[in-house]
Amino acid sequence: MSTANPVAPCDFVVFGGTGDLAVRKLLPALYLRDRDGQLPAQTRIIAASREGLDISGYRDSVRGELGRFVAHDAIDQQTLDRFIARLDYASIDFADPDDWHPLTTLLPADPGKVRVFYLACAPSLFGPISAHLATHKLVDRSSRVVLEKPIGRDLASACAINDAVGAVFAESQIFRIDHYLGKESVQNLLVTRFANTFLEPLWNSSWIDHVQITVAESLGVGTRGGYYDNSGALRDMLQNHLLQMLCLVAMEPPTYVDRETVRDEKLKVLQALKPMTPDDIERATVAGQYGPGLVDGVAVAGYKDDAENPDSRTETFAAVKAEVRNWRWAGVPFYLRTGKRMEQRCSEIVIQFKPVPHPMFPDSHGASEPNKLVIQLQPEEGMRLHMTAKEPGPGGIRLKPVSLDLNYTDTFQRPSPDAYERLLMDVVAGDPTLFMRRDEVEAAWAWVEPILIGWQQSERGPRRYPAGTSGPTDATTLIERDGRIWHEGAAP
Amino acid sequence: MSTANPVAPCDFVVFGGTGDLAVRKLLPALYLRDRDGQLPAQTRIIAASREGLDISGYRDSVRGELGRFVAHDAIDQQTLDRFIARLDYASIDFADPDDWHPLTTLLPADPGKVRVFYLACAPSLFGPISAHLATHKLVDRSSRVVLEKPIGRDLASACAINDAVGAVFAESQIFRIDHYLGKESVQNLLVTRFANTFLEPLWNSSWIDHVQITVAESLGVGTRGGYYDNSGALRDMLQNHLLQMLCLVAMEPPTYVDRETVRDEKLKVLQALKPMTPDDIERATVAGQYGPGLVDGVAVAGYKDDAENPDSRTETFAAVKAEVRNWRWAGVPFYLRTGKRMEQRCSEIVIQFKPVPHPMFPDSHGASEPNKLVIQLQPEEGMRLHMTAKEPGPGGIRLKPVSLDLNYTDTFQRPSPDAYERLLMDVVAGDPTLFMRRDEVEAAWAWVEPILIGWQQSERGPRRYPAGTSGPTDATTLIERDGRIWHEGAAP
Repeated sequence: MSTANPVAPCDFVVFGGTGDLAVRKLLPALYLRDRDGQLPAQTRIIAASREGLDISGYRDSVRGELGRFVAHDAIDQQTLDRFIARLDYASIDFADPDDWHPLTTLLPADPGKVRVFYLACAPSLFGPISAHLATHKLVDRSSRVVLEKPIGRDLASACAINDAVGAVFAESQIFRIDHYLGKESVQNLLVTRFANTFLEPLWNSSWIDHVQITVAESLGVGTRGGYYDNSGALRDMLQNHLLQMLCLVAMEPPTYVDRETVRDEKLKVLQALKPMTPDDIERATVAGQYGPGLVDGVAVAGYKDDAENPDSRTETFAAVKAEVRNWRWAGVPFYLRTGKRMEQRCSEIVIQFKPVPHPMFPDSHGASEPNKLVIQLQPEEGMRLHMTAKEPGPGGIRLKPVSLDLNYTDTFQRPSPDAYERLLMDVVAGDPTLFMRRDEVEAAWAWVEPILIGWQQSERGPRRYPAGTSGPTDATTLIERDGRIWHEGAAP
Repeated sequence: MSTANPVAPCDFVVFGGTGDLAVRKLLPALYLRDRDGQLPAQTRIIAASREGLDISGYRDSVRGELGRFVAHDAIDQQTLDRFIARLDYASIDFADPDDWHPLTTLLPADPGKVRVFYLACAPSLFGPISAHLATHKLVDRSSRVVLEKPIGRDLASACAINDAVGAVFAESQIFRIDHYLGKESVQNLLVTRFANTFLEPLWNSSWIDHVQITVAESLGVGTRGGYYDNSGALRDMLQNHLLQMLCLVAMEPPTYVDRETVRDEKLKVLQALKPMTPDDIERATVAGQYGPGLVDGVAVAGYKDDAENPDSRTETFAAVKAEVRNWRWAGVPFYLRTGKRMEQRCSEIVIQFKPVPHPMFPDSHGASEPNKLVIQLQPEEGMRLHMTAKEPGPGGIRLKPVSLDLNYTDTFQRPSPDAYERLLMDVVAGDPTLFMRRDEVEAAWAWVEPILIGWQQSERGPRRYPAGTSGPTDATTLIERDGRIWHEGAAP
């Protein structure tokens, strides 16, 4: 059953079209949208890379790879043939403007068609590619460019990239993707907050004790060691995904949910973050790096082996206690943490409410645990309100923790689509609501940068933690010092 | 698995011990408590009735009947034998003090043992039985008396009964039972409100639009036609069950939940009910009486046939719009309705929240329905928070009603015990928290009485409604005039 209207016809050009992201995420997402009837007949997908393939070689490789990343029962021959026929390939060196002929021949002047340039490549190429696109007159007003994270590695480099891309594309044409914003449970956070009344009176410092945002991965850096060693958890995850989620939790209700209004409100949250002083960085942040350990019973190497740099000080774990300085959130800490090679894959937002102001069941067995709203993003998407109920049965009142659950797959009787499916169609439709605006990205860098510098200047490197654990003990101390504990989510 | 500690040894005397209530509810409840290990060896159960049975005849009849009202898999031979051996029987005429010998011989002076006198008989006998118990010196400080509803048929008769029983028993020894207060979902309302914080900021006129309390039965008056014709829905259900539930919804948080504190708060609610003026009775109450109709596809007779009085004006349906005049509830109507021969058996409390103050998803498909908390008492016990979520999938935001559910049987992996199981043990333990205090009963009568009189004096009798429907159309008008509709609960 189709759940979405077709988008406009489009030439979808992927720079880095044979790379990991394209193979694992972009092509599967486009295939599924094609299968759902959302891609008109004229839609083409053009991969640009330096691999030197020809069109049939590229099509064969996609035909061979697609089944690895699309569910078996979603692949039918008719859709597959139609999808493969959309594919084209241009072997070019992005950095060399004289090598662009294979691509320009595929993109004649065609003002009636949307062009999407998806830059799935190193951020250092974002500026040059934009310039070359302009030189070759491939950009018109219906063109859009998609920038994958990271947008730079600090505020200055982010500004430089934004300037370079902005010299060719208007801000309304630039789609900075954060795929967490495309997750159903993250979008549903907006709907839950703003299409319901039951959270609003609770959603402030009177009733909320603190917020936790965790993105834990069980994987290591894998084959991305080279990239990762120049990045780290703060740049790779916290500056974008975690801060974006913080914004959606903390933002004020906009007048309506639309392309600029939500981003205006998110920006206000970023601007309200208390700047990190050297003292804050010492007390309220923790960098970690995984050592060898056991993940799911399998021995794995430490980061220094994965990174092939025995002296690497890159953090694979970051925990930060943030504060939002406004009326709604004053005094409510936001504890953020993300890491690789953690005990389990688990991404979640935990809204921890305050305990009851006064215990009213003195003779009860069992305690009244403070309420907690958990929005789970991974491994399953769902929402769970933890509460206390009376355990049925005669005798005194026995208090028992129970939960009110919303499981997406159960409720809606089908698995949630991948975030990229939605976001790619939003790009073609020109809807930037779920993409990061320039000012947001720069505000996030401005807040993160002192931490980056602080960690760099620190004599002490990142704290070691064994792979397969919940991170360095300092991260536990960070929250326990405040009389709180990390929510261990995905555990059964 | 036993879930409750044994209560004190007790002589449990049931006046009306061979009647409907004893057979259907009291003996099954005591059997199940016995099975769960809550009755010590010395506990005896003595049935008093005018049936002229002997002990073995009585024991045989219980042995034969118990299986009709206790689940098959809960009956085991060992418990059954032990339970039957506890039973004794006294054939007496309650009203004749000279006929009490069979009972007095069974109850020697035994100060170490609790005595419970359960009056499962006509309220006109409550006073005389109490007096005879005193005459025969069967009451001491560890005795308790249980009064079944109705406590009178208006304020004056309720006061007279309370005076007569109170002349023998202290108020702390008098247990006025309302089995709705023993239902797990009703008790859990207290726990949900007062062992959690998430409802408190919502629980007032700022966020709640109105409250509905419905007790709908699909049965007619059955064999109780004689009793019922002198009672009616207002006396039989609304004055006690529905007002008690209203109190639990509306009450302020007590300092702690204990024997007097909860009742103090309930009393304050009853005292805060806006007295019904003649104009209110005209506009904000509806009496109904079922005519012939179809219930579950079966043709059933009208009330006039069931009552064997073709001119009966007794109401089998009552709907009332009540108001609680205090800071928390000003402007929030409480719509109460109860009836026999309704479309389906369904008892529930519906907390209807106000709509969002401003719609924020103008381009969405589907509307944001106002939130609703539904506490279901029958046919299943459970709690459901109705909310709006985002339907997963690409394309625009589609709002979809979903619910967060707490089903007792699913959550706790066993069916909820019957209300009587808990309440009978509370009587033995001397805990009156879930029983109605004299002042509550009288305050409820004081509020209901003008409606009784108004209906009596009205030239128009109760509105007819066909059996198997949701009541008279005037009840629909009652709420729709305010721009609201009745929640149709148990419908799939």
